[in-house]
Amino acid sequence: MALSNLSLSYVDEHWNDFVYSLKEFVSIPSISTLSENKKDVLRTAQWLMHYFKKLDFHRVELIETDMHPLVFAEYKPPNPVATLLIYGHYDVQPADPESEWLTKPFEPTIKGDYIYGRGVSDMKGQLLAQMSATEAWLAHNTLPLHLKYILEGEEEIGSPSMQLVLRKYKDLLKADVALNCDAGIFAPTIPAITYGLRGLTYFELELKGPKQDLHSGLYGGTIRNPLHVLCELIAKMHDEQGRVTLPHFYEHVRPLSEEERTLLAEIPHSDDEWKNITGMSHLYGEAGYSTIERVGARPTLEINGIIGGFTGEGAKTVLPSKARAKISTRIVPDQEPEKIETYLREFLQTHCPPEIKWNLILHSCAPPALMNLKSPYMKSAVNALEKEFGRKPIFRREGGSVPVVAWLQQYLGIDSIMLGFALPDDGIHGPNEHQNLPLLKKGIRVYLNFYDELINSVGKEK
Amino acid sequence: MALSNLSLSYVDEHWNDFVYSLKEFVSIPSISTLSENKKDVLRTAQWLMHYFKKLDFHRVELIETDMHPLVFAEYKPPNPVATLLIYGHYDVQPADPESEWLTKPFEPTIKGDYIYGRGVSDMKGQLLAQMSATEAWLAHNTLPLHLKYILEGEEEIGSPSMQLVLRKYKDLLKADVALNCDAGIFAPTIPAITYGLRGLTYFELELKGPKQDLHSGLYGGTIRNPLHVLCELIAKMHDEQGRVTLPHFYEHVRPLSEEERTLLAEIPHSDDEWKNITGMSHLYGEAGYSTIERVGARPTLEINGIIGGFTGEGAKTVLPSKARAKISTRIVPDQEPEKIETYLREFLQTHCPPEIKWNLILHSCAPPALMNLKSPYMKSAVNALEKEFGRKPIFRREGGSVPVVAWLQQYLGIDSIMLGFALPDDGIHGPNEHQNLPLLKKGIRVYLNFYDELINSVGKEK
Repeated sequence: MALSNLSLSYVDEHWNDFVYSLKEFVSIPSISTLSENKKDVLRTAQWLMHYFKKLDFHRVELIETDMHPLVFAEYKPPNPVATLLIYGHYDVQPADPESEWLTKPFEPTIKGDYIYGRGVSDMKGQLLAQMSATEAWLAHNTLPLHLKYILEGEEEIGSPSMQLVLRKYKDLLKADVALNCDAGIFAPTIPAITYGLRGLTYFELELKGPKQDLHSGLYGGTIRNPLHVLCELIAKMHDEQGRVTLPHFYEHVRPLSEEERTLLAEIPHSDDEWKNITGMSHLYGEAGYSTIERVGARPTLEINGIIGGFTGEGAKTVLPSKARAKISTRIVPDQEPEKIETYLREFLQTHCPPEIKWNLILHSCAPPALMNLKSPYMKSAVNALEKEFGRKPIFRREGGSVPVVAWLQQYLGIDSIMLGFALPDDGIHGPNEHQNLPLLKKGIRVYLNFYDELINSVGKEK
Repeated sequence: MALSNLSLSYVDEHWNDFVYSLKEFVSIPSISTLSENKKDVLRTAQWLMHYFKKLDFHRVELIETDMHPLVFAEYKPPNPVATLLIYGHYDVQPADPESEWLTKPFEPTIKGDYIYGRGVSDMKGQLLAQMSATEAWLAHNTLPLHLKYILEGEEEIGSPSMQLVLRKYKDLLKADVALNCDAGIFAPTIPAITYGLRGLTYFELELKGPKQDLHSGLYGGTIRNPLHVLCELIAKMHDEQGRVTLPHFYEHVRPLSEEERTLLAEIPHSDDEWKNITGMSHLYGEAGYSTIERVGARPTLEINGIIGGFTGEGAKTVLPSKARAKISTRIVPDQEPEKIETYLREFLQTHCPPEIKWNLILHSCAPPALMNLKSPYMKSAVNALEKEFGRKPIFRREGGSVPVVAWLQQYLGIDSIMLGFALPDDGIHGPNEHQNLPLLKKGIRVYLNFYDELINSVGKEK
């Protein structure tokens, strides 16, 4: 029951079907953060269930939550050599600013080697590629792996139901290791495995000044303007070295070892390319760290949005009553997300003038995670990548947050193998998100090889 | 041809008609800054023309501009003792935030002594009160004053056409003095005359960072976030003494003389009442000046609005490409509005990091103005107020800007008598704007007395 060449040629022969399915999958606007898209999120879950039912999976069902359901799908062969929990998410980010898209975000469009659309890279493309590998294998053989797919519809809003689900369905979800396809590689020819992920805390801060909007000529200059105070607070959140100034913020940050700095320095990163991708003439960040370290191994604080006062066309001379900001931090081991809220509250208590009332809401939080680089599962992934790309993968720590990875360690006691094929310049979360199609096809073959490696290495151990 | 008692009783007898007209006037949403309300602005101008035609004015016409027309209406008696240019504006501010209105902004509603609606205080109420005084006089007598009404529909967007109109129609608008009803008094029982007005400059600043919105996890902490830079720039615009830090900003500010500080200190102002009106527990402003001085005689800088990044419901982890702010300054003699733009550009050049591109647009500007307190016209206004209120008015400098006052000095060489009946807590430019109706009736009588005083004092001089 090894990987059949027929499965590999199935990938080529059914490539057009794959692209057709991907377009269908991406065309449903499963935006989890907008309540008006709730039905679309459900439709996407149903689309996935239909897919697994066609593959004759043994169990396919919805796990309901307070907001968007998860899809659970199980393939259970006789005498499996291992149980693999396959994690993915089928929800996407909003498409705004829509005016900056060159194609319609929910009408996936192919141009050359690329497909454009919201979610093609994060992560409907990866997810469907992994599912296609299962389809290709099963088309010609049984698979001696017990597969458990758990696909959520709330990842882009911080996975609010996931912890509850992991606790409640602990036995159902029991596995030897998890495969998480919400991941990327370094460049089209440079495979990579992410072994570390930053955690996240996402806040909304509202400041309230005067009891109602006032005329800025009649009152300006005599009271605090909440927009000024908001700007002053935000300006104070970093020092001149680019360090975050929240009290105690760095207290529990595990320092980078020289060994790890060496490993991270091997990543063929180019600051010039980073400038090119971002369109910035200069890079900027915490003093004393490289770009790779700043983004993967050091904590950061970013303002994700601000609104207040008059923001329409033209001029309105108002001294606004309120101002709001979205503030997030990315955190690294051993910072704890719950403590960040305490630090931020302490900061606001210290720096906000007494006549400005503030209210802080925590939208979502997720712990950081680091994985064991020496497990047989990790080795299977390394071999699968090497076979396809002809070179060993880069090991890296990623700047994004996949909270479920830390939670799977916490609740099920298992590591996650991060194996995905997004590229750094796919434009995820922004306009014109896209995915390299030939790379996605390579990805399907890597997932097939990963199954094969797992069966061989773990099978032998047993 | 003096003020007839019949005219005074006309005011009482026709009070219900006045209120009915005011409701009709206010119910047309003449929001000059929103292009979708262009027709409403025109309808309001036509409503005014109809009013003057009913009074048998000698000339009633529209003066077209690139955006909203002015209404010109002329009453020309034989042998007038003086020519009075009556200025007003019939446009209003937008009604947002509409959710905070307790009544509908364009369905004027009476509660007790107050009428609520956008524009009732700024300035449809005052304007109609002045026009009603003319109506009441003419109902029983001829008026030996040559009246020229010039009513604009672009005041709330900074009067972009007014200078051109004043230059082009210089002869048509020639007068001895102007009466400007876009003004207020101190309290219902304390009359006031504004002899100074601050000027205004209103800018829109756009910052651009990365070439498109980026994922804040993947790029955060490695490049400048334009929202951070915007906040840092704004935070730097004031020092810890509440002073504006734009270079040269105070260079041309005429210092307050001890005499003027004494005059301003006579205003029965209460900081506690100011706190009450604004709902702030503390006042704040430029060190070394009183609240009255800060708002009327010192220049200020206020942020009127900010928007950038994700501002919708929930969480989106974006590092935005752009950030925008509306920034205005109020200026005093002898600051020049044109120079403020130069100062702000110099400030941005100095403080904005090179990788963040900035673009500054000037939306509107207006010079400050100071009037002669000793002219016969000013004395007529003082006497008219004293007759009605039983006490001399307070003399003050106002924080708001009425650019036309400075332009009338510049182009026609005439002072403006600021005679209006708005109150500081009428909520102009904010939600729930309202106007005290009994005070408005007093106002009509003051305008009648002002005509009478003018005829007597100026007539005698001649």
